[in-house]
Amino acid sequence: MKISARNQLDGKVVEVKKGATTAHVRVELAGGQVVTAAITNESADELGLAPGKTVKAVIKSSDVMIATD
Amino acid sequence: MKISARNQLDGKVVEVKKGATTAHVRVELAGGQVVTAAITNESADELGLAPGKTVKAVIKSSDVMIATD
Amino acid sequence: MKISARNQLDGKVVEVKKGATTAHVRVELAGGQVVTAAITNESADELGLAPGKTVKAVIKSSDVMIATD
Amino acid sequence: MKISARNQLDGKVVEVKKGATTAHVRVELAGGQVVTAAITNESADELGLAPGKTVKAVIKSSDVMIATD
Amino acid sequence: MKISARNQLDGKVVEVKKGATTAHVRVELAGGQVVTAAITNESADELGLAPGKTVKAVIKSSDVMIATD
Amino acid sequence: MKISARNQLDGKVVEVKKGATTAHVRVELAGGQVVTAAITNESADELGLAPGKTVKAVIKSSDVMIATD
Repeated sequence: MKISARNQLDGKVVEVKKGATTAHVRVELAGGQVVTAAITNESADELGLAPGKTVKAVIKSSDVMIATD
Repeated sequence: MKISARNQLDGKVVEVKKGATTAHVRVELAGGQVVTAAITNESADELGLAPGKTVKAVIKSSDVMIATD
Repeated sequence: MKISARNQLDGKVVEVKKGATTAHVRVELAGGQVVTAAITNESADELGLAPGKTVKAVIKSSDVMIATD
Repeated sequence: MKISARNQLDGKVVEVKKGATTAHVRVELAGGQVVTAAITNESADELGLAPGKTVKAVIKSSDVMIATD
Repeated sequence: MKISARNQLDGKVVEVKKGATTAHVRVELAGGQVVTAAITNESADELGLAPGKTVKAVIKSSDVMIATD
Repeated sequence: MKISARNQLDGKVVEVKKGATTAHVRVELAGGQVVTAAITNESADELGLAPGKTVKAVIKSSDVMIATD
């Protein structure tokens, strides 16, 4: 499947923390920065997310902001 | 200013491409992956965005999806 | 590729309308309702979107609101 | 009330599942496809959402992605 | 129509600026602060938006971030 | 830090309600209208959010919809 979202960042799962309905998944990108995704528990289970798994962090360009010091 | 968005990725602007109202800004992160942000032309001007500028790509965790092969 | 977004609706492209940087893509779902996506012109070109093409409309559950009369 | 979101899909609630603060509402569209919305528990209560209720799934076009096989 | 988005702020249109496909609409809230919405040109036309018109700025709570100095 | 999001509304926290992973933060704007933000519990703690604290509600213009009666 190819998708229109412009950002598809390669990384590895480092943590999956589940709440009542939402799971917080931390993904380490090449270069060591970490991205956090909030997805549903069902999605985390269906994708078989666990530390060490190779994944992509997918983000629409309209959801990315830029900040400067 | 500190902000609640969980993802604040350090990087450097590599390209700013302006349309009628929207600017597409490409930011190279440590490790070489590139993130694209779609922001307003006014924001791009106000932040003085140009290739080489040090910035952060800011993203709410609820806007990040996870994909697996 | 499998993705965490809960909504992956099957449909067929009925129209692609390009602006300066953004393309508006209309997708007819089974049952006849039409969904409109605003994606970048690059994505529309890379995915080869044109009327008649079979696609999925992908939407995070946190981006869906519910309205009642 | 009329709203600027381009997507206003007619459907019927088939399930409401509440977590600590977030409710997952599944809506069956004409044609049988199901859309899931993540809204607050307060909204689910205020709108009186329950299986069988006629509703609209409302989505901004900038929140819809397109995927192809 | 009632909608699940938690934020429905009363205000008055002060400016509508159209681009190729996207219109930037500025709405003055009670108390004088101004909110900017990026919506499609079609929506701006269909809603008859023009300076002086009474409207609501509608925002999902998951799209609001908090910042502190 | 300066950020590209167009909407940065001044206000004061009136309530912080925490769920399993998500906190609902209500902010009273000048003029008395209240904005609700859904952020992570970690963010609420890191920003030291509590009733009476001066904050900004930050929202991308592409996340704001307009409604009319």
